[in-house]
Amino acid sequence: MATKEEIDRAQHVIEEVGLFAREASKSLATAASSAKNNTLILLAKLLEENKDAIKAANELDLQKGAEKGLSAAFLDRLRISDKVLKQMQDGLIQIASLPEPVGQILNLRPQPSGIQVGQMRVPLGVIGIIYESRPNVTIDAAALCLKSGNAVILRGGSDALNSNQELGKILQRALIENGLPENAVQVIKDPDRAIVGAMITCRKYIDVIVPRGGKSLISRLMNEATVPMIKHLDGICHTYVDSSADLELAWKVCDNAKTQRYSPCNTMETLLVNAKCAEAFLPKMAKIYTDKGVELRCDPAAKKLLENHGFYNIKDATEEDWYTEYLAPILSIKIVDTFDDAVNHINKYGSKHTDAIITQDLSSEWRFLREVDSSSVMVNTSTRFADGFEYGLGAEIGISNDKLHARGPVGLDGLTSVKYIVLGHGEIRQ
Amino acid sequence: MATKEEIDRAQHVIEEVGLFAREASKSLATAASSAKNNTLILLAKLLEENKDAIKAANELDLQKGAEKGLSAAFLDRLRISDKVLKQMQDGLIQIASLPEPVGQILNLRPQPSGIQVGQMRVPLGVIGIIYESRPNVTIDAAALCLKSGNAVILRGGSDALNSNQELGKILQRALIENGLPENAVQVIKDPDRAIVGAMITCRKYIDVIVPRGGKSLISRLMNEATVPMIKHLDGICHTYVDSSADLELAWKVCDNAKTQRYSPCNTMETLLVNAKCAEAFLPKMAKIYTDKGVELRCDPAAKKLLENHGFYNIKDATEEDWYTEYLAPILSIKIVDTFDDAVNHINKYGSKHTDAIITQDLSSEWRFLREVDSSSVMVNTSTRFADGFEYGLGAEIGISNDKLHARGPVGLDGLTSVKYIVLGHGEIRQ
Repeated sequence: MATKEEIDRAQHVIEEVGLFAREASKSLATAASSAKNNTLILLAKLLEENKDAIKAANELDLQKGAEKGLSAAFLDRLRISDKVLKQMQDGLIQIASLPEPVGQILNLRPQPSGIQVGQMRVPLGVIGIIYESRPNVTIDAAALCLKSGNAVILRGGSDALNSNQELGKILQRALIENGLPENAVQVIKDPDRAIVGAMITCRKYIDVIVPRGGKSLISRLMNEATVPMIKHLDGICHTYVDSSADLELAWKVCDNAKTQRYSPCNTMETLLVNAKCAEAFLPKMAKIYTDKGVELRCDPAAKKLLENHGFYNIKDATEEDWYTEYLAPILSIKIVDTFDDAVNHINKYGSKHTDAIITQDLSSEWRFLREVDSSSVMVNTSTRFADGFEYGLGAEIGISNDKLHARGPVGLDGLTSVKYIVLGHGEIRQ
Repeated sequence: MATKEEIDRAQHVIEEVGLFAREASKSLATAASSAKNNTLILLAKLLEENKDAIKAANELDLQKGAEKGLSAAFLDRLRISDKVLKQMQDGLIQIASLPEPVGQILNLRPQPSGIQVGQMRVPLGVIGIIYESRPNVTIDAAALCLKSGNAVILRGGSDALNSNQELGKILQRALIENGLPENAVQVIKDPDRAIVGAMITCRKYIDVIVPRGGKSLISRLMNEATVPMIKHLDGICHTYVDSSADLELAWKVCDNAKTQRYSPCNTMETLLVNAKCAEAFLPKMAKIYTDKGVELRCDPAAKKLLENHGFYNIKDATEEDWYTEYLAPILSIKIVDTFDDAVNHINKYGSKHTDAIITQDLSSEWRFLREVDSSSVMVNTSTRFADGFEYGLGAEIGISNDKLHARGPVGLDGLTSVKYIVLGHGEIRQ
């Protein structure tokens, strides 16, 4: 627990940083597209030119981390390797090449009174990013915020402090050289934990918080935040194989949804199979999974069916399993009697992230699309497609399973808002 | 202050009501358009048929209110007159005739992988409406929530309790007769104030709160709410008369923006005039206002100019005036030296509601549209047009000056969200 003094000090720090960010956001909101894109391109160049300084700062963090006894996996995420540096540069060039989101005018239509009413896409203002010790987020998140015309306050994990400070210096140089306000991007120097608490309650200066990190970080923030957040907590994704499914298609898609990668949030965690096709579908499916080393946790019906086909290492799924995001080669499987049972299971145990149906039946397709209350609902394809790039958004700052504002993969548009514009010619209200 | 016991009891009440609403919202989300519209039409009929019972219940509230010494204006808002009843009925028929918002599919486009990605409009889920003692809100708000497929929890002012209960009974009858869940609309019976506190923190069952009422109600709610709100606090609306303005147009529009009605939130409260056209513009404008009894509060330059033209009853505008929403025949006036001064004044003192420029200059138009950070930005027309009906939304539940989710006038779309839908044909992620 932070002391009263720590909390006061953190609030003071964030008020100052926030005021600077608010000021910067004003000129950034109407900055020329070319200035923003040139900043991103210069930044890619500066990352190359300052490689040694970046790596030296990162080395300092890595040494401290090793001394502290941080895990190898943790240190691996902390490391700015040549590959990571290259990915940052590629990302910058790619974001620079995306169409300008700010100032776009939508739906401009004349109304009976004679006025024309439309909407203009505008930045949100100031975005706070709270993330763990992955220094690449510093560059990626700053680039998306800058492109969308938002000032950003970056608060990375304290174990990446030196790396982030070095990247922050380079970011501000690129901004200044392109005539943009240096406070458009601010990297918090203060490692104090109370800073996070101050950020997520600073409604005066921060318009939205985007947390990047694990479930424990995000659920902690959710309990205290009064600033709106763009976030998702879990990805408990389902695939439901309907009685009318094309089985060849189902085997291929269900394999991909689980085994293409185990750790992403859009990987399938529960497979639901209609009882009518379970006998024809499940044994071959189970063979595909077990050949790849996936542990299967089944309800009694699925377990019995698979045991009848010679699978003897099937575990029992507990109530807890249906609520679990494994992020690992583990899959829970349930046989459902009806379409409704499948939808009810998903709406009850799912996390409103991404859920798919495999079906050849038009009514099942339509009902699934309408009745499953998730941010992405899919037909005859892999949940692994729930991704800003695959959806054609060009970039992704995260995935939201909330309902207000952004929902699903969040690209540049999710970092903007629309205001109404009204073009008149002297009309008056009667 | 509520006691611990009162708070616990209120939370218990809201948890129960919330659970019922959540259940109802599930079937409502996919209810047939015809069932929803028929409910609205039947409701209009039932209001007529049950006129006597409604008026008797309302009379009880009016008597209690009179005994309590409530003001005549308060009792007037509380009264369900024939006119108010007719307006409710007309509103219902009009909402029934609007296009169906739920299930609409937007932007369905093929992606390089072969999947088609689009969005489907879906209800938010459960909406809580907190309002003062205007029983017509019970019907209007319920109708908008029902049409947009949301379950609604209505919590009106305690002085309208009998009226709202009577209307609630009729609402539930109309729902049941059309096969819709009766808990789609629930009118809270409990007059306890702690109920409001429980509603605005019940994130488990309530997806969004729409407060309808005065500034004091809303600012009180804002401090405690953890459920997202669709709301606006003030309408401090500006009109800026640019140096290039067509003065005939300016006189007409500025007259309308202030004097067409004094109490709406989109009425102009501050007039900004460029110094270059102040001499030509202000005296005639001031005459229009003073002839209609509008009190003028001016900065020193405007005051001096008007006094030179024989206006002797001009008051000095204080710093406080620039922040004030008068909702009355009072207008503050300031002469600004430059376009930038005007924009800076609006962004500093305004409430991000609605602001207009009067200009014939294309650069001024474009800069004003981009640089003024308000939910509605207008050119050459009256701020009074900031309204859901005038914007072609067909209905309005309120106006939002927030940035996330809905911004500006909020119609049926503002009570919905969009989820991603992905139509595949066996595609897998590479």
